[in-house]
Amino acid sequence: MPLVTIKIIEGRTIEQKRGMAKDVTDAIVKNVGCPTAAVQIDIIELKAENVAQGGKLFSDGQ
Amino acid sequence: MPLVTIKIIEGRTIEQKRGMAKDVTDAIVKNVGCPTAAVQIDIIELKAENVAQGGKLFSDGQ
Amino acid sequence: MPLVTIKIIEGRTIEQKRGMAKDVTDAIVKNVGCPTAAVQIDIIELKAENVAQGGKLFSDGQ
Amino acid sequence: MPLVTIKIIEGRTIEQKRGMAKDVTDAIVKNVGCPTAAVQIDIIELKAENVAQGGKLFSDGQ
Amino acid sequence: MPLVTIKIIEGRTIEQKRGMAKDVTDAIVKNVGCPTAAVQIDIIELKAENVAQGGKLFSDGQ
Amino acid sequence: MPLVTIKIIEGRTIEQKRGMAKDVTDAIVKNVGCPTAAVQIDIIELKAENVAQGGKLFSDGQ
Repeated sequence: MPLVTIKIIEGRTIEQKRGMAKDVTDAIVKNVGCPTAAVQIDIIELKAENVAQGGKLFSDGQ
Repeated sequence: MPLVTIKIIEGRTIEQKRGMAKDVTDAIVKNVGCPTAAVQIDIIELKAENVAQGGKLFSDGQ
Repeated sequence: MPLVTIKIIEGRTIEQKRGMAKDVTDAIVKNVGCPTAAVQIDIIELKAENVAQGGKLFSDGQ
Repeated sequence: MPLVTIKIIEGRTIEQKRGMAKDVTDAIVKNVGCPTAAVQIDIIELKAENVAQGGKLFSDGQ
Repeated sequence: MPLVTIKIIEGRTIEQKRGMAKDVTDAIVKNVGCPTAAVQIDIIELKAENVAQGGKLFSDGQ
Repeated sequence: MPLVTIKIIEGRTIEQKRGMAKDVTDAIVKNVGCPTAAVQIDIIELKAENVAQGGKLFSDGQ
């Protein structure tokens, strides 16, 4: 702990995930003062048909 | 926000998801009075072997 | 299952929660065809200082 | 309720999931005193490239 | 990882939480074969007015 | 979306939360290329008696 969950539309590259994991961890350590090793992140990738805003699926356009 | 997560067994059609997204959003707006555009929904689809009730996997029957 | 989690800024009345629980459940049953009794909902109430959009806390205004 | 979510790296067998569902349910019933049928579990399987500790993806080694 | 989240109605004693944390961890280690130290658990306590089944709040009776 | 949930032991100041919200948002925008306004963060504060690692509650020491 801290435990971070990032929900995001699928399709990011592993380089994007690698950079995001590093930079989000640094952002938390900087502000909270916990050990770097204590930060755990999981990424939940979602299909556009499984996300909606304003009652409309992302796969139907926004 | 409001942010809604719906966990459901996989296998719904996009029409079911579209209707659910619209109707759940309307249900929240009606009761909470927030703007429609503020409601975000994500759907987490689960395999039957990844859900259990009473200690028994759904894939083993209920 | 379906399991629904609704994250919302704290401060809703019990009447709002009661109405939301009923109407969200109906919205899911209508679209998915599951038994009403199968739908479980939990509401996570959040303080405005624990929610941010665009990098800015809700408690700092939006 | 209780509702249990288990996030785990993908690749467990169905026998492991079956045993985990049964034993985790028993562990909760023993300590909380709820009916066995009230315990629901869902398992979220994650790819190693979607999990990080200490700012480093599991798929890059730990 | 594994990361376990347990949602439960508020009001458990610390002895119940302590026992649940130990026994759930053992149940996972037994079935998955991970190190004990790798298992993290968080408990989300919910008020009865924030949980519903079948469209009815727990605080209104079940 | 992206939607970020940060689970953390309670007791952070609002300045820490404000900094964390800003820096985590920047870290995601930098790597994913989404609009800043699309990033939503919620912080779940947990009591030490509601978190365990290795089967032991944080409130019992680690």
